[in-house]
Amino acid sequence: MNLPKVLILGGGFAGIECAKVFKNQPVEVLLIDRQNHHLFQPLLYQVASAGLAAPEIAHPIRSIFFKQDNVTVLMDEVTTIDLKERKVVTREREERYDYLVIALGVKTGYFGHTEWEQHARGLKSLDDATAIRRDVLHAFEKAEACDDPAARARLMTVAVIGGGPTGVELAGAFAELARHVLKRDFKNINTSEARIHLIEAQDRLLTMYDPALSDYTKRTLESLGVTVHLGGAVADLREGQIVLHEHTIEAATIVWAAGVEAPPISRTLGVETDRAGRLVVETDLSLPGHPEVFVAGDLASCVDQAGKRVPGLSPAAMQMGRHAAKVILEEIGGKRPASYDVRPQFRYFDKGSMATIGRSHAVAESMGMKFDGFIAWLMWLFIHLFFLVGFRNRLAVLMQWFYAYVRYRHGARIIMGLPSKPADPGPPQTKPPLAATEARD
Amino acid sequence: MNLPKVLILGGGFAGIECAKVFKNQPVEVLLIDRQNHHLFQPLLYQVASAGLAAPEIAHPIRSIFFKQDNVTVLMDEVTTIDLKERKVVTREREERYDYLVIALGVKTGYFGHTEWEQHARGLKSLDDATAIRRDVLHAFEKAEACDDPAARARLMTVAVIGGGPTGVELAGAFAELARHVLKRDFKNINTSEARIHLIEAQDRLLTMYDPALSDYTKRTLESLGVTVHLGGAVADLREGQIVLHEHTIEAATIVWAAGVEAPPISRTLGVETDRAGRLVVETDLSLPGHPEVFVAGDLASCVDQAGKRVPGLSPAAMQMGRHAAKVILEEIGGKRPASYDVRPQFRYFDKGSMATIGRSHAVAESMGMKFDGFIAWLMWLFIHLFFLVGFRNRLAVLMQWFYAYVRYRHGARIIMGLPSKPADPGPPQTKPPLAATEARD
Repeated sequence: MNLPKVLILGGGFAGIECAKVFKNQPVEVLLIDRQNHHLFQPLLYQVASAGLAAPEIAHPIRSIFFKQDNVTVLMDEVTTIDLKERKVVTREREERYDYLVIALGVKTGYFGHTEWEQHARGLKSLDDATAIRRDVLHAFEKAEACDDPAARARLMTVAVIGGGPTGVELAGAFAELARHVLKRDFKNINTSEARIHLIEAQDRLLTMYDPALSDYTKRTLESLGVTVHLGGAVADLREGQIVLHEHTIEAATIVWAAGVEAPPISRTLGVETDRAGRLVVETDLSLPGHPEVFVAGDLASCVDQAGKRVPGLSPAAMQMGRHAAKVILEEIGGKRPASYDVRPQFRYFDKGSMATIGRSHAVAESMGMKFDGFIAWLMWLFIHLFFLVGFRNRLAVLMQWFYAYVRYRHGARIIMGLPSKPADPGPPQTKPPLAATEARD
Repeated sequence: MNLPKVLILGGGFAGIECAKVFKNQPVEVLLIDRQNHHLFQPLLYQVASAGLAAPEIAHPIRSIFFKQDNVTVLMDEVTTIDLKERKVVTREREERYDYLVIALGVKTGYFGHTEWEQHARGLKSLDDATAIRRDVLHAFEKAEACDDPAARARLMTVAVIGGGPTGVELAGAFAELARHVLKRDFKNINTSEARIHLIEAQDRLLTMYDPALSDYTKRTLESLGVTVHLGGAVADLREGQIVLHEHTIEAATIVWAAGVEAPPISRTLGVETDRAGRLVVETDLSLPGHPEVFVAGDLASCVDQAGKRVPGLSPAAMQMGRHAAKVILEEIGGKRPASYDVRPQFRYFDKGSMATIGRSHAVAESMGMKFDGFIAWLMWLFIHLFFLVGFRNRLAVLMQWFYAYVRYRHGARIIMGLPSKPADPGPPQTKPPLAATEARD
C-alpha cells in the first residue's frame, strides 16, 4: 500500500515541528531544506557578536529525525512549486506530493532597495552571522593600526538598522563586545570610544511591546552606550554611510534588521500574497483553493480564528507547523471529511515574547504581564536554553554564557573567511610606529 | 629612552612563546600576524572532521597578551622583509626593528604541482578546515539524493594524501565520522559503505616513528575501515581523481596532507633556503650574516647543537621561539657580547611525539619508549588539552570529547559557506522518489 506523501519545504521551526507530529503515523514525509541544519534563529545575534560559535546554535536536521523512520531529509533547493500538478522541483529532482507544507520562511528585505544589500548585511543565516562577526572584529583590527582619527572613528562605529527584537539584541551585544570584551585586548585604541547606533524609523523601539517596555529598552541601551535614533527612516544607504533625513552616520559596519520579505518563489505560485510576498492563507492555514497545501511559519500571512494577525515569531511558527500536521493526520485517518469548511481553524496561543538587552537585562510580555530587568533576563535565558535543539548544544551554550557572564570573555572572537588576497591598498605608507608601551590608557 | 624593538612575524607556537619570554623586560615587542587568532594546529583535523567548532581551537592573539603591556599585536600581512634596512613592510605600514624573529610557519606544498591545489585542499587554517568539513558533509548529502551507484560511491569516498600524523589523524577521524556518527543520520545511503583512502608514497605510515608503531597504525586504521595505500606516489591529480602508478582512485573529497613549503617571502630575503624554501639558520637560530635576525618554528631549517635536525612540530617551534627570545634578552642585558660565536646554541629537547587514530587509539614515542592503544590515546588527550590556549577552550573541548566518546555524536556537523548560487545543474531530471520507509537497512 502506498502511504500518503507529505512534502515539507523548510527545516525551520515550522517545518521541524510539523514533521515531528507525523511520528509513528501512516504517512511518508519528505523534508527538503537548502541547509543541512536547523538553525536556532533567536540566538543568531550571539554568533554575529562573537558570543557563541556557529555550530552551537545549529543542529543537523537529519539528526533530529534519526529515530523517526518515516521522515526522509533532503538537502536541496526548491526551484518550482507546481500546485496544479502537485509536484515540487528542486535543483536535483522532482517530487510529487499528496499534501504540501510550505515552511520556507522569509529572507532579509530592503523595502525594494535591493542595491542596499551590498552595504548592509542582513542576519538570517549562519553565514550572515559569521560574516558580520568577521567584519566587526576586522574593523577594530584596522582601527588599531590606523592613525587617522576620522578613519579610526568610522572603523569603530557599528550601525544597526531596525529597532525590533533583532536590532535591539544586536545593538546591546555589540556595545558590550566593544566596551567590555574587546577593551582589554586592544592597546592603541580605546574601544570604549566605539559608537553603536541603533536606527528605528518609528517613534519607539520594540513597537509590538507595551510603551513602558520600549522606554526601558531605550534607557538600558543608552546606559550601555548605544545611540538610539528614533523616527530615523533611512533615506539612502551607501558604502559605510547611512543617510537619515537630518544627518548622515558613518559606520564601517552596517547591519540591516529592519525588514523581511518572502523568497521570490512565493510570487510564482499564482496565489494571493501580501505586500511582503507572504502567502495569504485561510484560517486552517491552507492555501485558498488548495486544501492539500498548507503554509506555516513566517511565510504565512495569517489571521487566526480569533481574528488576530499571527506574528512572525518562532512560537507561532511551531504552532502553525503542528496545526498543519494535525489537520493532515485527521483527514488521512478519516476522522473528518476532506472538506475545508469543517476543518479545525488555527488559533495562535500567545505565550508572550521577549528580547534581551545586553548581559543582564531583558524585556518580556506574557499573559498581559510585563517584565523587565534581571528577572526578565533570567526568563529569557532559561526559555532559550530549553528550546535549543540538542542536549549538547544546551550544555555548550550554558557554559559559554556562564563564562561570559562571570568573566566578560566571549568565546568566538575569531576572524575567519577573509578574502585571501585583499584589494591592493597601493604603496604602503610610512606611518609612525605603534607605540607599544605608552598607548594603553 | 628608546627601548630596543623586537619585531615578531607570526602568531603561531614559535611567535607566541617568543613574545611571552619578554614579559616585564625592557623591550618593545610588536607581533604581526595575518590572522587575529593563534591556532592550535594539532587539533585542526578535528574541525575538518566535524568534531570541534572552529572557535574552540583558536584564541585571539590580543587576548593572550592583554596583561603584557610591552607587546603590541597587529593583524596585517607582511609583504617585504628588508634585512639591509632592518625594516618590515606590511600591507598597511612599515616597521623598523632592532631584532627580528621570523616565525611565519609553512604552507601546504604540492611539490611544485601548483595546479593540484584546486583538486586537493590542504589543512593549515580554520578556513581550510571548515571548507573540508563542508565538502565532506555536502558530498554525503549529495550521495543521499543520488540514484546512480557509481556516482554515489564516488560521493561517499574521501581520500587523504600523505601518511604523516595529519594524514593518519584525518583518515581515522573521517572513518569514524562516516561509520559511526553519520550512520544513523542517513536513510537512503549506508554510510558504512563509505570508503576512506590514505595514500602514502613511502612504504610505511608515520615514517618518523618506530616501524612497530607504523604497523600498529596501519592495522588500527584498517580495522576502522580505512584503505591504506603504501608506496603509492601520486602521479597526477585531477578533479575527483587521484592517479597512482598502478591505478586511479575516484573520490569526491581529496585532502592533501603530503607536504609543506615555505611561504614565497622566504625566497625574497637573499639568504640560503633549503629545497622547501625554509630559511637555513645557524645553531643559535640566527640567519647567517644577520645576528639580529632569528628564525623560529617550521620555517627554520635547523640542525641543533647536537647535530640533530629539528622537526617541524609544535614543541620544537615553542622551544625555538623561547630560545631566540632568551638570546636577544641576554644580549640586551649585556650579559653576553653581541657576537655570534659566544651565543648559546639551540638544543632541541625531544619530549616525544604522538598521533591519534580514531576514538581510542594512538601511538606515542617518548624518551626511547613506545606506547600504543588506549594508554597512548589518554596521553594524547591530556597533553592536547593541557596545551590548548584558554581555560574556556579546554573546558569546551573536554566536554565535546567526552560527549563524542560516550555518544558518538560530533557537535559540528554543520554545512556553512556554500556558494549561494550553485552552478546550474541543467534541467532537473525526474528521478524516482526517495523511498522513506524502506530504505533504512
